[in-house]
Amino acid sequence: MASQTKPVLHGYFRSSCSWRVRIAFALKGVEFDQVPVNLIKDGGQQRTEQYRTINPMQQVPAVEIDGITLSQSLAVIQYIDETRPGPRLLPADPKKRAQRMISDLIASGIQPLPPLSDHPQVGAEKVQWAQHFIDRGFRALEPVLRETSGMYCVGDEISMADICLVPQVYNAERFSVDLEKYPTIKRLNQTLLEVEAFRASHPSHQPDTPEELRA
Amino acid sequence: MASQTKPVLHGYFRSSCSWRVRIAFALKGVEFDQVPVNLIKDGGQQRTEQYRTINPMQQVPAVEIDGITLSQSLAVIQYIDETRPGPRLLPADPKKRAQRMISDLIASGIQPLPPLSDHPQVGAEKVQWAQHFIDRGFRALEPVLRETSGMYCVGDEISMADICLVPQVYNAERFSVDLEKYPTIKRLNQTLLEVEAFRASHPSHQPDTPEELRA
Repeated sequence: MASQTKPVLHGYFRSSCSWRVRIAFALKGVEFDQVPVNLIKDGGQQRTEQYRTINPMQQVPAVEIDGITLSQSLAVIQYIDETRPGPRLLPADPKKRAQRMISDLIASGIQPLPPLSDHPQVGAEKVQWAQHFIDRGFRALEPVLRETSGMYCVGDEISMADICLVPQVYNAERFSVDLEKYPTIKRLNQTLLEVEAFRASHPSHQPDTPEELRA
Repeated sequence: MASQTKPVLHGYFRSSCSWRVRIAFALKGVEFDQVPVNLIKDGGQQRTEQYRTINPMQQVPAVEIDGITLSQSLAVIQYIDETRPGPRLLPADPKKRAQRMISDLIASGIQPLPPLSDHPQVGAEKVQWAQHFIDRGFRALEPVLRETSGMYCVGDEISMADICLVPQVYNAERFSVDLEKYPTIKRLNQTLLEVEAFRASHPSHQPDTPEELRA
C-alpha cells in the first residue's frame, strides 16, 4: 500500500493542525519530508497562487502522499492510520472509536477561529476571543475526558484524541489560558509530552522553527 | 450490535449538523426519536443545565445511542456507519475514504462560525461574515469536487461528503450566497435533494419545524 516516495508535509512549525500530522507520522514511524509554509512572512505564504494548487483552502497542513494531496488534518491522520502499519490511531472497539468526538470537538469546536487564522498578528481583543473559545471548549472537554480517559484520552492507548489534545493545549498556553481549571486535560498533556512521538514533533524543534523559539 | 432501544436525536430542525445526522439515519434505514432543542426560544434551550449534561458543548446535535451519548455530527455519522448494516457511508477504498477531507472542510472550515452560533439573531454584519466564510469554503470546495465527484461528491456512491454538502448549501442559501459561481456544488446539491433520505430529513418537515416554514 505504501508508496516508495516519502510523503511531503506542507506545514508550519507552530500550526496546531500541522503538529497533529507530525505526531501521526511519528507514532506510525513513517519518514516524511517537510516543506515549510510561513503563515506570517510575505503576508502569509499560504496565500500564494502556487500554494492554492496544493490546498485550495490556503491553510496548512497539506500532505502529498501516495499520489494524492490531502488537507484537513483529521482526514490525513485517518488516511495514514488506514494505510500504514504500526500502532492503531483509532481504537478497534466502535464505542471507543466513537471518541472521534473528542478530536472533532477540538478540530471543529475549538480550533477554528477564522479571524485569528486570517490575522496572525494578534491584538488584545483577539487574544480575549481566543481565550473565550478555548475556555468554552476545555470546559466541555474536561468532563468528557474524565469519563473516557485512562492513561491517555481514551483508555490506555494513544489515539487521535491525544494527537489533537496536545497541540490544542500548546495553543491554549500561547493564549495564557489557565490550565489549573482543567486537571484532566493538564494531566493528560503532561503524560503525552513525555512520549517520544510528541516530543520529536514539537514546534520547538522543527526545520522552520526560528532560532529564538528553539528548545 | 444495535440495541433494542431507538436512538434519540437531540436536534433542531434548521441546524445543519442536526440535519447531517438525520440524513445518516435515513440512509441506513434506522428509526430514531427526536427531541427538539430550540436554539432561539428561551435564549436557547441548548444553554440549560439539563442540556449541558447531554452535551457539554451545549450545541446540537447530541445522540443517545447504544447506551452512550455522542455529540459532534461526523463522529455520530461514523459511529452509525460502523455499527449499522445498510449502505456504507464511507467508501471502502482508502483513497476515496480520504475524502473525509470534504466533510472536514465543511465541518471545520466552513460551518463553525462561533459568533453566529452564539447569536442566532443575525444582523447585517453577521450575514456578511457568514457569506465571506461560506464563499471562501465553496471556492475551495468547488475544484476539489470537480476532481472527486461522479454522480455524487465522491464517485457514484453517496457518502459522508454528500451528507455534509447538502445542509451546507441550505445554509448558504439562507445567507444568500450566489450558487451560480459553484456549478459542481449546485449540480450535486440538486441531484442529492432528489434522494429520499435527503428529502425525508429536510428542515422543512421536521417535528419542530414552525408552521410557516413547512413545505
